[in-house]
Amino acid sequence: MMKKYLIGIDVGGTAIKIGQFDLAGVMINKWDLPTNKTDCGQHILPEISHFLNENINLEEVKGIGFGVPGPVTAGVIKNGVNLGWDTIDVVGEFSKLLTNKDIIVKVSNDANVAAAGETFCGAAQGYQNVCLFTIGTGVGGGIIIMGKLVDGHDGMGGEVGHMLVDQKRRFLCNCGKSGCLETVASATGIINLAKLYRIEDPTSKLNRYDRLSAKMVFDFAKKGDRIALRVVDEATNYLAYACSLVTLVVNPDIFVIGGGVSYAGQFLIDKIESQYYQYVTPFISHAKFALAQLGNEAGMYGAAYQVR
Amino acid sequence: MMKKYLIGIDVGGTAIKIGQFDLAGVMINKWDLPTNKTDCGQHILPEISHFLNENINLEEVKGIGFGVPGPVTAGVIKNGVNLGWDTIDVVGEFSKLLTNKDIIVKVSNDANVAAAGETFCGAAQGYQNVCLFTIGTGVGGGIIIMGKLVDGHDGMGGEVGHMLVDQKRRFLCNCGKSGCLETVASATGIINLAKLYRIEDPTSKLNRYDRLSAKMVFDFAKKGDRIALRVVDEATNYLAYACSLVTLVVNPDIFVIGGGVSYAGQFLIDKIESQYYQYVTPFISHAKFALAQLGNEAGMYGAAYQVR
Repeated sequence: MMKKYLIGIDVGGTAIKIGQFDLAGVMINKWDLPTNKTDCGQHILPEISHFLNENINLEEVKGIGFGVPGPVTAGVIKNGVNLGWDTIDVVGEFSKLLTNKDIIVKVSNDANVAAAGETFCGAAQGYQNVCLFTIGTGVGGGIIIMGKLVDGHDGMGGEVGHMLVDQKRRFLCNCGKSGCLETVASATGIINLAKLYRIEDPTSKLNRYDRLSAKMVFDFAKKGDRIALRVVDEATNYLAYACSLVTLVVNPDIFVIGGGVSYAGQFLIDKIESQYYQYVTPFISHAKFALAQLGNEAGMYGAAYQVR
Repeated sequence: MMKKYLIGIDVGGTAIKIGQFDLAGVMINKWDLPTNKTDCGQHILPEISHFLNENINLEEVKGIGFGVPGPVTAGVIKNGVNLGWDTIDVVGEFSKLLTNKDIIVKVSNDANVAAAGETFCGAAQGYQNVCLFTIGTGVGGGIIIMGKLVDGHDGMGGEVGHMLVDQKRRFLCNCGKSGCLETVASATGIINLAKLYRIEDPTSKLNRYDRLSAKMVFDFAKKGDRIALRVVDEATNYLAYACSLVTLVVNPDIFVIGGGVSYAGQFLIDKIESQYYQYVTPFISHAKFALAQLGNEAGMYGAAYQVR
């Protein structure tokens, strides 16, 4: 039967987002399922398979792509702790559940898959070499080279959040090291810096709140609060530096900035872009910087992109 | 006619190395031509074409690959100053010179091509994701992802020598910035550090020589000279840091270290490898480090690898 659809599945710790797309990447339908993490997450793949069989004519499906939270190599996720998983051969296990054996199944890390989503139908549409920074509680990343997701040898491709950029190593990272980009440029990192610097100026509005958020820091910076501006300048300087390092490895066509912190908008992009050129060689002509466009649907789009 | 051969051509500022290979990458023949840089290097490609026509039956040639000194994108080199070239469409120009229109022509940057050479028939044979550091007068680099050379948007893929790693920015780089990896880890960089530190200890053997070389520094370090060891430890620490940054972008299977400084041998590799793990996340299982094997023939092998 004629293959007309791609399925993109973003498997998160709370919800599983399933998108049905035509072959050009236009979303036809989408569903949310709760993530059943009981029994070490062993029901997750069967429940997805059951759902697809009930809701979609799989004979018309060209491929099913997954994005999963954890490092992926050759279809296998290691340490999928957010799903209750240890090491799971997602491609192998899921293929076994399918009666239609001609369906392509692929899986990649969720941050990489989000980069693929922006490349498929978002801010990086039409580009072949893309780097996405997802700036939320942490800093994730995804790299697309020549139109393909870069998983890397240990599934650590695009793990830009763990680049050592704060040489003073002031803050401990969840990974166990200190000084990672994530400790000074994620929402958490921005709060780290704000708490450090607000003491220096009692007039800063950042002192009025016990619980700071990255959004507050950006909002006060936009209104000219000196300490908030200093925090934003420093965090975005680290991001600009990280972008320069990515450029000198793979020289992408475009950097896409997503995640919750990216709701700070063009102000954030301008801060990163204006500080980027001090770090790259003068031979770099011009790098593009853009805000992500797909929000939390990027994972579904990118999961489908893998099997396009 | 049956296609039996690949041609790999490393176009350097002094000599043009031409290698003839079978399809598996075994070298059948090689030649050296002088590089004719007169008239803005306009004779270089015609002279190569003439030489090939005289010496090889081009009907049996599947492809001709070039490595050239300068940034390459989509077959075009920009600022090929070492050859007297400005911007040249190498693929377009050379294809016009060929009477056999079924020959594939490709071109990439010489450092990227060297990485491809080591992947084809050298230290990284059998790997799909490779990073080469060429440590000589400067620090060059090349990245192979999923078996393909990464040129990047401005041809700056693999330009790892210009990553800012010396936050104190003590030494000026040829690129116009300060603090590049090249300023503290190339042969020049090692001499920079040696001159800086030898003053602190008049008993260091490094004080006995007006003209230092990187080889001297490594030789004295191996014999236990305290200052020489400090220089080697610092230079290799910067290299280890740069390797960690590459890992967190593309997570290669193997790092290959080549160039003149790599004649320091396993001592150099051990120094880099032992300092690498402090910079990567604990999730990285194990990275391979190896000495380059092809010396100055890597360019020919890699040029041919492009058209395999």
